[in-house]
Amino acid sequence: MRAVVRRNKQLVCDEIAELTPGPGQVLVRTLACGICGSDLHALHHMEHMVELSRRAGAGLDFDPTADTVFGHEFCAEVLDYGPGSERRLKPGARVVSIPATLTATGVELLGYSNRLPGGFAERMLLSEALLLETPNGLPTEAAALTEPFAVGAHAVAMARLDADSASLVVGCGPVGLAVVAALKAAGHGPVIAADFSPRRRAAAERLGADIVVDPALESPHDRWEALGVPRTRAAQNMIRMMGGRFGRPVVFECVGAPGVLQGLIEAAPAGAQIVVAGVCMESDRIEPSIAITKEIELTFIFGYTPDEFAATLRQLAEGVIDVSGLVTGTVGLDGVAGAFRDLADPEAHVKILVRPAD
Amino acid sequence: MRAVVRRNKQLVCDEIAELTPGPGQVLVRTLACGICGSDLHALHHMEHMVELSRRAGAGLDFDPTADTVFGHEFCAEVLDYGPGSERRLKPGARVVSIPATLTATGVELLGYSNRLPGGFAERMLLSEALLLETPNGLPTEAAALTEPFAVGAHAVAMARLDADSASLVVGCGPVGLAVVAALKAAGHGPVIAADFSPRRRAAAERLGADIVVDPALESPHDRWEALGVPRTRAAQNMIRMMGGRFGRPVVFECVGAPGVLQGLIEAAPAGAQIVVAGVCMESDRIEPSIAITKEIELTFIFGYTPDEFAATLRQLAEGVIDVSGLVTGTVGLDGVAGAFRDLADPEAHVKILVRPAD
Repeated sequence: MRAVVRRNKQLVCDEIAELTPGPGQVLVRTLACGICGSDLHALHHMEHMVELSRRAGAGLDFDPTADTVFGHEFCAEVLDYGPGSERRLKPGARVVSIPATLTATGVELLGYSNRLPGGFAERMLLSEALLLETPNGLPTEAAALTEPFAVGAHAVAMARLDADSASLVVGCGPVGLAVVAALKAAGHGPVIAADFSPRRRAAAERLGADIVVDPALESPHDRWEALGVPRTRAAQNMIRMMGGRFGRPVVFECVGAPGVLQGLIEAAPAGAQIVVAGVCMESDRIEPSIAITKEIELTFIFGYTPDEFAATLRQLAEGVIDVSGLVTGTVGLDGVAGAFRDLADPEAHVKILVRPAD
Repeated sequence: MRAVVRRNKQLVCDEIAELTPGPGQVLVRTLACGICGSDLHALHHMEHMVELSRRAGAGLDFDPTADTVFGHEFCAEVLDYGPGSERRLKPGARVVSIPATLTATGVELLGYSNRLPGGFAERMLLSEALLLETPNGLPTEAAALTEPFAVGAHAVAMARLDADSASLVVGCGPVGLAVVAALKAAGHGPVIAADFSPRRRAAAERLGADIVVDPALESPHDRWEALGVPRTRAAQNMIRMMGGRFGRPVVFECVGAPGVLQGLIEAAPAGAQIVVAGVCMESDRIEPSIAITKEIELTFIFGYTPDEFAATLRQLAEGVIDVSGLVTGTVGLDGVAGAFRDLADPEAHVKILVRPAD
């Protein structure tokens, strides 16, 4: 079958071996699969990612110099089952799954495996136990966004927002947009969204951001006071002394570049929780004494739980999260390498989907 | 009156102006005042501290090049009251207070002020509203430790420990020892304490640490598994899948030197909360991607609340926290400069108290 293979740090279309579902596995046809920022990074820096993962004790157990087929944000169609399956869903059913497949030798993370291809291939092997049927009315394109939007649901679940809390989402790429959507889906109060890109700001607004800010023109932190959140400890203490109250400020870091964290530590209100969802793969510099004086909390988060993934699918299906307009391009397997290049420009696209059948 | 003045980055004994209590203020005689690690740092780097404070929006509002009298960990004796006071406590009463005095122009932080002296002076001005009488049976030396031990109470209050949690206290200087004491006073489960100094490890043990570790010989993180806390996410997920449970691991960083944070991010169990109580005044380097993969939380903390301060005084008085043996030296005002030098050696002392009357 055809697939886009990462080989020698390049993406090439090639024929790879056909797949045969093992016990408990399902052979699926990939209908659509999003290109993630992690894929863009991994194309050139997978060796470094594997090394960091090893140091984190997570042990992405694969050889970054061998062939890999990316793609972990997919919607697919059931084709056939391996032995010992329940065959709960009929062939033809559309499904999503967290990008992990149980095998006899352990869990393969789809998109970061030498053994199983991810979604930039015509077919994949999934685990029957992890399949979620895509509700009928939900378009394939929207279902393929379950994975990136589950990241937003997890970020909000890990935030300690109270009833009065206001939030700031810094960076409105796919992760930041998912956070905006999850905050509004959970009914949380005012959301400021900041991004240099007009296209991304517009997307944040469509997903429900109450205030959008271009950081080139103004600091988003200048908006806290108007939302009732004093920025200095002295001003906060004054309000408390007078019997007043204000919600804990929560900042979602969805950029993932060096220097952003320290900028937030300095600019965020005292007592803020900074939920770090942007994945900075480089070493970064912070000034702990400023974080200490302000009692900042840095909550580093990763992925999502199966429950958050399933809840996100429901919210997409029920229209609680409306992703229309977010898919700004689709390509066939031949177009993947070009799409990776196009995504370097934040103004050009929000999300590109790969449709292996095209 | 006599005081130890910081002048040109040196400590000199000098005569300073007598104090007259203003409205709501109390003139007290300093009985004992501890030397804090912040004082050691401030002697040479106060300009930098003031600049960092300004950037943190906290605005230590004083001139670091002008005279300052350090000392914010004190026990004192009431001498006289200013106008409009309630005179609730009789002259001669022994008192402690958070090191802040309300004045007509704002709050002066004792020890970091050009206007009012801290505890390395024969007398101080405190605020009547903030005075806490020292219970009769509590020795002056122990009462003077209320302030540093309140830092431990705050650290534990900011930790999210659950019933099964185990804790690791990294660094057993006065801050780490205060955290050990507060953990045990609050009834929390197993506490590992790590320090290179035998003297400090012995002090941690006296304060209730269940396990003490010399990091020169073994990593304290090798003890987590024996306390029921798996270190990798995979091992943690396996326990959860089998219906097992384990408490959230909490690490207290009480060293405050560059590189310690990243070391903890790498070595701590996945999902750990790292409560950062050690004040690193330099810029520091972390690798966010490892913190992300492990879902580490960095909770930077500062000071304590008045309630935590008062509760700490009660725990000292009731013997819940037994500080005997922690004061390893006392000096008069003439001996302060030498004591600052002696404290550079972690093996030489735990806490030195200044007794201005000596």
